[in-house]
Amino acid sequence: MAEVSGHTVKAFDADINNMRTLISQMGGLCESQIKASIEVLTRRDAAKAMDIIAIDERIDALEIECEKLAVQTIALRAPMAGDLREIIAVLKISSVLERVGDYAKNIAKRATVLSQNPHAQPVVIIPEMGTLVAKMLSDALDAFVARDVELAKNVVARDQVVDDYYAALFRSLLTFMMEDPAHITPSMHLLFVAKNLERIGDKATSIAEMVFFAATGEQILHRPKGDDVALAALSDRSS
Amino acid sequence: MAEVSGHTVKAFDADINNMRTLISQMGGLCESQIKASIEVLTRRDAAKAMDIIAIDERIDALEIECEKLAVQTIALRAPMAGDLREIIAVLKISSVLERVGDYAKNIAKRATVLSQNPHAQPVVIIPEMGTLVAKMLSDALDAFVARDVELAKNVVARDQVVDDYYAALFRSLLTFMMEDPAHITPSMHLLFVAKNLERIGDKATSIAEMVFFAATGEQILHRPKGDDVALAALSDRSS
Repeated sequence: MAEVSGHTVKAFDADINNMRTLISQMGGLCESQIKASIEVLTRRDAAKAMDIIAIDERIDALEIECEKLAVQTIALRAPMAGDLREIIAVLKISSVLERVGDYAKNIAKRATVLSQNPHAQPVVIIPEMGTLVAKMLSDALDAFVARDVELAKNVVARDQVVDDYYAALFRSLLTFMMEDPAHITPSMHLLFVAKNLERIGDKATSIAEMVFFAATGEQILHRPKGDDVALAALSDRSS
Repeated sequence: MAEVSGHTVKAFDADINNMRTLISQMGGLCESQIKASIEVLTRRDAAKAMDIIAIDERIDALEIECEKLAVQTIALRAPMAGDLREIIAVLKISSVLERVGDYAKNIAKRATVLSQNPHAQPVVIIPEMGTLVAKMLSDALDAFVARDVELAKNVVARDQVVDDYYAALFRSLLTFMMEDPAHITPSMHLLFVAKNLERIGDKATSIAEMVFFAATGEQILHRPKGDDVALAALSDRSS
């Protein structure tokens, strides 16, 4: 049923390349948004937060463009199962990146509020988490483009480090909150910022898992989720 | 290119019906999981939490089944643009429902930890939020099946009520935490439970928005997100 003439195959390749370009653009934007949102937090640069919110709309627009192109390609080229799976993967990754953009935007918003709070203390773990998850995301997308299984496995392994950072931050913020009621509000913000970063790490991991599955047909072994880690941290104190 | 003989059209209809059945099953499970997770919270029934965690795996399996069927249908039937859009919508909804299942599971886990904490006070707002978002989800799926634009609009409108509940709970938990350091840990759990419910409301809303868009070709006007509401609540206190 599908045409396999040179012309149609080339047209399909062009379509899939366009989709990959859109994914790269989205990925690049997400990475710079994560970094920018952490800068808002550390430099108290509230003007930059407005830029971040504006740029997020471009990520949303790219997702819609990607979906349109995917539907057009499937409808016009009637791709075979393998090509179809690749298009579905692109669709899923574009939707994951759209969420990552939202997390970065949420961090920027909270960072703006935090910048006005005299009790907000700079927490060194948060910028480190930010750098880590931005790199995980860029590596996961590189693994997708190059179909690099080893790099994908490496990204999945790093998720544990993000979870460890999150659990450590969680404990220290709890202690800080208990010291003085004035610490509660800024600590809650920082906790939600860290939760957003932890989720970006989860999203990068899920892209890496897709790359691994596409290449090997097997799922990477189940890993503990960030939420379990935080619960374990909390259970220590609630007993 | 696509075959339009009666036989193939019927086969396509059977496929799409199977996908809709899978979505209904996932939706029904999600709804009962939300209710069960709130029961764990209010009745301190920790054994039930284990059931919820086990049942979540069935939701995950249904999503994978749905995706397989979608890819098969596209590959075998080469559907026209309209049918293709419907399959893509099913794929998106199944992925949204998988997330909803995760949120319910997270609530059950936190509820288990909370049930051991003597300072956890039953907060009446949370069961109300639970009932509200479970109904929003079931209405959003009904709107999808019946292509009911009015019901979809109604679901979107209710999201504001969820956000109002969340903001009210947020403020009262902040006050409760400031009263006594022993209140901090259980309040953080309750806040994360409420955040999960608020996200389920967002997911139901996004399904309703898809139904509206598919029927009218237009986006429903932009609504404020839960995170903005919580930030507004916090800003009052951080100034």
